Amino acid sequence: MDVIRDFSLRAALAAGLLAAASAPLHAEDAPQIDSFSLDNGLQVVVIPDRRAPIVTHMLWYKVGSADEDPGKSGIAHFFEHLMFKGTANHGPGEFSARVAEVGGRENAFTSYDYTAYYQQVAPQVLPDMMAFEADRMTNLVLTEEVIAPERDVIIEERNSRVENDPGSLLSEEVSATLYQNHPYRIPVIGWMHEIEKLNRDDAIDFYRRYYAPNNAVLVVAGDVDAASVRELAEATYGKVPRGPDLPPRVRPTEPEQNTRRTVTLVDERVGVPSFSKRWVVPSYTTGEGREAEALDLLAEVLGGGVRSRIYQELVVRRGIASSAMAYYQSTALDDTMFMVMGSPRGEATIADVEKAIDAEIAKIATDGVGEEELEKAKKRFVRSMIFARDEQDGMARIYGSTLTTGGTVEDIAGWPERIRAVTAGDVKAAAVRWLDERRAVAGYLLPKE
Amino acid sequence: MDVIRDFSLRAALAAGLLAAASAPLHAEDAPQIDSFSLDNGLQVVVIPDRRAPIVTHMLWYKVGSADEDPGKSGIAHFFEHLMFKGTANHGPGEFSARVAEVGGRENAFTSYDYTAYYQQVAPQVLPDMMAFEADRMTNLVLTEEVIAPERDVIIEERNSRVENDPGSLLSEEVSATLYQNHPYRIPVIGWMHEIEKLNRDDAIDFYRRYYAPNNAVLVVAGDVDAASVRELAEATYGKVPRGPDLPPRVRPTEPEQNTRRTVTLVDERVGVPSFSKRWVVPSYTTGEGREAEALDLLAEVLGGGVRSRIYQELVVRRGIASSAMAYYQSTALDDTMFMVMGSPRGEATIADVEKAIDAEIAKIATDGVGEEELEKAKKRFVRSMIFARDEQDGMARIYGSTLTTGGTVEDIAGWPERIRAVTAGDVKAAAVRWLDERRAVAGYLLPKE
Repeated sequence: MDVIRDFSLRAALAAGLLAAASAPLHAEDAPQIDSFSLDNGLQVVVIPDRRAPIVTHMLWYKVGSADEDPGKSGIAHFFEHLMFKGTANHGPGEFSARVAEVGGRENAFTSYDYTAYYQQVAPQVLPDMMAFEADRMTNLVLTEEVIAPERDVIIEERNSRVENDPGSLLSEEVSATLYQNHPYRIPVIGWMHEIEKLNRDDAIDFYRRYYAPNNAVLVVAGDVDAASVRELAEATYGKVPRGPDLPPRVRPTEPEQNTRRTVTLVDERVGVPSFSKRWVVPSYTTGEGREAEALDLLAEVLGGGVRSRIYQELVVRRGIASSAMAYYQSTALDDTMFMVMGSPRGEATIADVEKAIDAEIAKIATDGVGEEELEKAKKRFVRSMIFARDEQDGMARIYGSTLTTGGTVEDIAGWPERIRAVTAGDVKAAAVRWLDERRAVAGYLLPKE
Repeated sequence: MDVIRDFSLRAALAAGLLAAASAPLHAEDAPQIDSFSLDNGLQVVVIPDRRAPIVTHMLWYKVGSADEDPGKSGIAHFFEHLMFKGTANHGPGEFSARVAEVGGRENAFTSYDYTAYYQQVAPQVLPDMMAFEADRMTNLVLTEEVIAPERDVIIEERNSRVENDPGSLLSEEVSATLYQNHPYRIPVIGWMHEIEKLNRDDAIDFYRRYYAPNNAVLVVAGDVDAASVRELAEATYGKVPRGPDLPPRVRPTEPEQNTRRTVTLVDERVGVPSFSKRWVVPSYTTGEGREAEALDLLAEVLGGGVRSRIYQELVVRRGIASSAMAYYQSTALDDTMFMVMGSPRGEATIADVEKAIDAEIAKIATDGVGEEELEKAKKRFVRSMIFARDEQDGMARIYGSTLTTGGTVEDIAGWPERIRAVTAGDVKAAAVRWLDERRAVAGYLLPKE
C-alpha cells in the first residue's frame, strides 16, 4: 500500500539500475505476449514465464492522483487503502490473510496515472486471487466505520513519509513549482489539509466512477497460459458489469514556461545537502517522433549510472559529489519530468555540484554525444531492460504502466527498434530543446547554517 | 473591457494613491447607504451622491477567473467581452452606442473573484442603462459567428498585454509559483493555449451557470434615491428569473508552504530591472480577528506611499531605488497576496534593493512600529479613503468588490473602527507571522546581460 510518487525512480534506485522499470522490454528476448479484452471491457495481458512455479497477478486501474477533482487530493491513494477493507462477501483483511496463508506476497501502489494491486502466488492459487480481486472491484463496503480510521492511517503515513522528511517536503514544492497548471504538481499522497477532509461521499463517488472493468487492465505473468487465464478471467472479472463510459483523460496542460525558478528548503534535520534541477518534457505518450526515446538515451548518457558523464566527472574524476545522476520519468499520460541531481562531497559546495552538472549538460547541447558512447548507452539501456525482465513483476509493471498511460502492447514490442533508431543528433537536439536553463526549476535542500 | 489582474494595485497606482480602491470607506463621512434584495435574489446597493448630476450604474457578478473549471482559464474574461455582443433584443454594440450617444462612459472588468459592468451617465438615462444591462443578463446571443472573432480579439489582447510585456510574463509565473493549489495561481486573462480552445459550449455553459440575478450585486451611486432605484430595478432586473442555486464558492486552498522560491525572467526587452517578493496571507474575508486590518496597516507603514519606511529609506535617504513599495491585496474571497517591490537606481543592484527591503521588514518584525507612526499611517490610510470616496465610481467599486468577495455592507461601515483598533503589537505580529523569508516567493526581472 504505497504511494508511488515517482514509481520508476524508486523502483530503479531500489534495484540499483536506472530506467529499468519505466521503460519497455527488449522485444527480441520477449516471450509471446497475449492480449485480449473481455466483453465488459477489461483488457487482459498474459506474459508467460515458466522458469518457476510462480504467477504475478496485477490489476491496474486507469486512475491516479492526476485524475482527482480539485480540492480532493489524496483520494486515489486513500481509495487504494480502502480496497483492503471488507466486501459484501469477505471480511476486512480476509484477502490479505489468504495471500499470507498460501505463502504469497501482495502489494498495491498509487501513482499519478494509475493505481495497481498485485499478488505473487503459486499458479494453483491464481483462481482464488482473481475471485478476490474481482469481488473488491464492485462489492466493497464503504461505511463510516471503515473510512474514518483509515483516514487516520493515511494522515499518519503522510506524517512519517513527508512531514518528517525534509527531502520529501522539498520535492513536493518543487513539483508544485515545476507544473504551473497540470495536476502532476499535486502530490500523489495528497496535501494534508485536503486528506483531512476526505469523506465517505468522496470515496463512494470515486469508486463508482473509476473502479470498473472497462477502466482496468489485468496483467498476469508467470507459469500460466493465455487460454486458462482467459477462462479464469471470464469466470471472475467477466461477471462484473461494465461501468459507465468515462470521458477522455484530458487534464489541464502546461502553458509555455518562460522563467527559471528555484525552491529552497533549509531544515535542521538535513544531514547532507542536495541539489536537483527539473524540466517539463514530453513523455512516451506525448512525445513526437523519437523525442521520448532521445530523452531516455540523454538521461542514460548524462546520468544513467556509474558509466554516465555526470557520475564519471563529478563522483569519479573530481570527487566533488557523493552522488550524481539524471532521470527521465518516461512513462506518463501527459508531459512529464526530466531531472538531474547530486549531493556535494567533502569541501565541495552545492553550487560546485550544480555548476559541474550544468557544464555536462552544456557540453552535450554544444558538442553532442559520440557514436560509440551512444551505442554503449543503448546497450546498457537494453541490458537493464533484460535485467528488469528477469523480475517477473518487473515485466508485469512495464505492461501495466504502459497500458494505463496511453501506450499499447505494440508500443512495447516496437520500443527496441525505436531506441536503436535514435541518432546522436536526436540526443543533442533533445538537450538543446528541453534542458533549457531559462525554464529549469532547481531545488536546494540545505542543512541549517 | 479590462482584465484586472490586480485590481486594487492598478487602480491605486493609476490614481497615485495606494490601497484606496481595495479598502472600504471611512464611515463617519459616509452617506446613507441603502441595501435591499429583489425577489429574484438580486442584491441592490444605493449610494447617494448629489454633488453632480451623474450616476454610476454597476452590475457585479459573483464569478471571476478563480471560479473557472480546470483547463478553461480565461472564460470569465472572454465572457465579459461577449457581453458586449448582441442580445435577442439589441444588436451587437447597440448598448455601447447608446452610452456614447448620451455622453456617458462605460467599462467592464474581470478579476479573480468578480466580473463587473458599469456605465456613468446622467440620471435620466439610468432607466435605459438598467434595461440594457438586465436584457444582456439573460438574452445574449451566443452564436459561432460571435464567438470566433472575439476569441481572436482576446488572443490579440493577451499578445499585447502579456506576451509582449516581460513584466507581465514574470508576474504570471510568480503567481503560478506563489499559489501551489489555489486558482489565484492562474492568470485572469487565461493561459494562451487554453484561451485558444475556448468555444461556444464553454460560453453557453458559463452564462447559464453564473449570469443570473441571484448571483449578482447591483450598485448604483450618484444623484439618485433608493426608492426610485428600487422601482427601476423591479421594472428591469426584476423581470429576469432567478437562476439555479449555486454551490458555495469553495476553491482548493493552499497547503502549508515550507519553501523559499525565486522566479527569474531575463529578457532583452527589459529596460529597468525590478524585484518583488510575495507571500500568501489572509484576506479581509479569511482573516481572523484583526489580521487583515493589521496587514493593511503593515503595508501602509512599510511601503504605502512616499512617507513609508521603504520609500524613505531606499528612494529618499539612500537613493538606491527609483521605486519601492508594499502592497496588500486585501479584498479577496480567499487567502491572498502581500507584496513588496522595488527597482534599483544608479549604481545600485537588484540585490541591494532586495537586501534593503528585507532589512526594513526585519526591523518591523524585531522592533515593531512606533505609536505615532501607526497613528499617522491610520490617518493617511483613512485620508486616502476619503480621496477614493470622492470618486463616485471609487465608492461603487468598494461596495461591489466587498459584496462579491464575501463581505457585507456592515463590514464596510465597521471598517474604520476596526482599523482604529489595530495596535502596534498587531502590526508587528503580522510581520512576524506572515512575512516569513522561508516562505517568500521572489521575482526578478532582469535585462539581458
